[in-house]
Amino acid sequence: MACYVQKFGGTSVGTIERIQHVARLVEQTYKAGHQLVVVLSAMSGETDRLLKMAKELSADPDDREMDVLLSSGERVTIALMAIVLKKLGIKARSFTGRQVGIVTDSAHTKARVSRVDTERVKGALKEGVVPIVAGFQGINEASDVTTLGRGGSDLTAVVLAAALKADSCVIYTDVDGVYTADPNIVPLARRLEKVSYEEMLELASLGAKVLQTRSVELAAKYRVPVVVKSTFQDGPGTLVVEEDADMEQVLVSGVTGDRHQAKVTVVGVPDQPGIAAKLFGQIAQSSINVDMIIQNVSQDSLTDISFTVPRADLPRSMSLVQDVAKSINARSVEVNETIAKVSMVGVGMRSHSGVAAQMFQALSREGINIMMISTSEIKISCVVEEKYMELAMRTLHQEFGLDASGIKA
Amino acid sequence: MACYVQKFGGTSVGTIERIQHVARLVEQTYKAGHQLVVVLSAMSGETDRLLKMAKELSADPDDREMDVLLSSGERVTIALMAIVLKKLGIKARSFTGRQVGIVTDSAHTKARVSRVDTERVKGALKEGVVPIVAGFQGINEASDVTTLGRGGSDLTAVVLAAALKADSCVIYTDVDGVYTADPNIVPLARRLEKVSYEEMLELASLGAKVLQTRSVELAAKYRVPVVVKSTFQDGPGTLVVEEDADMEQVLVSGVTGDRHQAKVTVVGVPDQPGIAAKLFGQIAQSSINVDMIIQNVSQDSLTDISFTVPRADLPRSMSLVQDVAKSINARSVEVNETIAKVSMVGVGMRSHSGVAAQMFQALSREGINIMMISTSEIKISCVVEEKYMELAMRTLHQEFGLDASGIKA
Repeated sequence: MACYVQKFGGTSVGTIERIQHVARLVEQTYKAGHQLVVVLSAMSGETDRLLKMAKELSADPDDREMDVLLSSGERVTIALMAIVLKKLGIKARSFTGRQVGIVTDSAHTKARVSRVDTERVKGALKEGVVPIVAGFQGINEASDVTTLGRGGSDLTAVVLAAALKADSCVIYTDVDGVYTADPNIVPLARRLEKVSYEEMLELASLGAKVLQTRSVELAAKYRVPVVVKSTFQDGPGTLVVEEDADMEQVLVSGVTGDRHQAKVTVVGVPDQPGIAAKLFGQIAQSSINVDMIIQNVSQDSLTDISFTVPRADLPRSMSLVQDVAKSINARSVEVNETIAKVSMVGVGMRSHSGVAAQMFQALSREGINIMMISTSEIKISCVVEEKYMELAMRTLHQEFGLDASGIKA
Repeated sequence: MACYVQKFGGTSVGTIERIQHVARLVEQTYKAGHQLVVVLSAMSGETDRLLKMAKELSADPDDREMDVLLSSGERVTIALMAIVLKKLGIKARSFTGRQVGIVTDSAHTKARVSRVDTERVKGALKEGVVPIVAGFQGINEASDVTTLGRGGSDLTAVVLAAALKADSCVIYTDVDGVYTADPNIVPLARRLEKVSYEEMLELASLGAKVLQTRSVELAAKYRVPVVVKSTFQDGPGTLVVEEDADMEQVLVSGVTGDRHQAKVTVVGVPDQPGIAAKLFGQIAQSSINVDMIIQNVSQDSLTDISFTVPRADLPRSMSLVQDVAKSINARSVEVNETIAKVSMVGVGMRSHSGVAAQMFQALSREGINIMMISTSEIKISCVVEEKYMELAMRTLHQEFGLDASGIKA
């Protein structure tokens, strides 16, 4: 008898018919004699509906109250799922975030899990009950409802799988696994059989929406095997596990593109110690996430500093940067909003050299100019003009042998 | 500084605009320097939407899960209200049923309040915070969510008003008070300035939907002054309080009509001790609420027993009654579904005789046949043919001097 945590996202429970379909998937695992815990998101569209109402009432709604509001959606799906499972003769019982024992800090709308009190859910499992758990939510020490941020249901699933030492955490979603690239952009993209935690983490951070970043971190930390598969079609999905020898043979596992970045350049900065600290210190204080940073070689004691920020944060960043630029006597601030970040991820890069050079050559062959570069042990990112993003992704996908063979395409 | 509990029903918070309107009403009381607790229902239509989904999944959905499902609606309204109040600069904070300390038994979907732990809400009031409370819900001792049944938000409001020793509990609704009769049926119906708990209790039991029966019982028990008034128009509303000398002067306070009843007659019942006990004992066991009972004078040791049950319970009752009828050798069972119960309520009846006679004469003058009669200290009910219900109500309303004078009509 194995123990599984199965998580179903919002599109998987978006209609009554889909809830019934998910119930049949749960029934299969249950009837095979396994212990299982089911984690659910709110019905797709529900969170947006609630958000819209809150925004109509206040441009800046209170975080504590947003959590009370948004956590209502999962309560609906867990109750409905328990109702239909009971009708199928399965001993199911709904658990809210509080009841399943997810205790968090008080950072409303993006709380971090501080501990999991699994007593009650373990008791239910011992009774042969299938706990149906509200994802995305917990309570803080003051017993107020908190939520774990977008994609937080993945986190709930992984946290429970870790706490229950489950054999695996299965993330059911609307795609049949993790792909070498977004198939909407790269038609020859292939499903990966296996991907390492580290690669998955990079892919998630780079915008692959299939798994929430923090849930991958946690899965890696507690060595929880994660399977990503489709709710709507049968198949093996993608296994997210520890790195193994097979994986190292593969140079690149995935190619990503991100057009939600903007590039800011502070021109003519006096090249003195402490200037960068001043600039980025202030930006960090306002919780703006700076991604890539480049500082040009100094000329005449003046230098240019470029960095990328999420495009959504640009207005906020600009007023900040302009203030700092003035205070450090920089010449001007320039902005480029039509950029995109193209990245390649693969644990094979660790043991193979020349990957970066090959990447730059391939892009150059297509006449794509590289504006910024950043590398890590298993990742290389280039900022290019936005209009070249798709071409760059397809080029790299082919260059590094990721294209599916004829039939699949 | 007074302390008020203000309760707003589903239609009062049914749209974003109405939530904003309610927020301004709350703001008025708050700015006048009073302490207040706001109790909210779910947005109108929400409960039906959730119910419909559950019914699509199961004809007989689990009660515990129904409570998890239905309690989600109030969480939405309290969060939205707290959001808009904070925007108005008012220190508001949402409280779920659990957080406000409403502890109930485990009778899911119709739980009874066993105690109220007001510590947290009192703490909030001391801080100058306006608690925004989810009506209709509580938790049982196992920490599972329970609901208090239809109209349960009234109960939440009265329970809190009693526990906090509030100066009054104001029930805001879509009518401007308690009327002498349903104005849709009796156009000359008037708003009552004052009505006693006892009268209100009878009126509520007889189908006046303005206040939930149990909440009136509780208000009477703890002497909580209740005000019923309109969310949408200014006015004094109706005060529900202890009986006073003024009220006794009034013979009849209200006339009601109820067409949701059916009459069952067991014909040719052996007139032996214990037969009635057997019949009604079995019906009571299946939680069917028998209202009026009449037993005819015995002839040849045979008698007829008639009683009324809610029309919705008729199918269930009939199979029961037919079984019992067979077992006691009764001749047959007859059913009449086209009946209505017309009632008059007034504490003045206690001190005035002849009210019943006057009622029967008035109905007789209009040629309305009375099929069953039941009386209590402050109430007389007659069962008549359903088609005469409106006529009977208007006749009695005029006969007992309740009609509004010309201008109002």
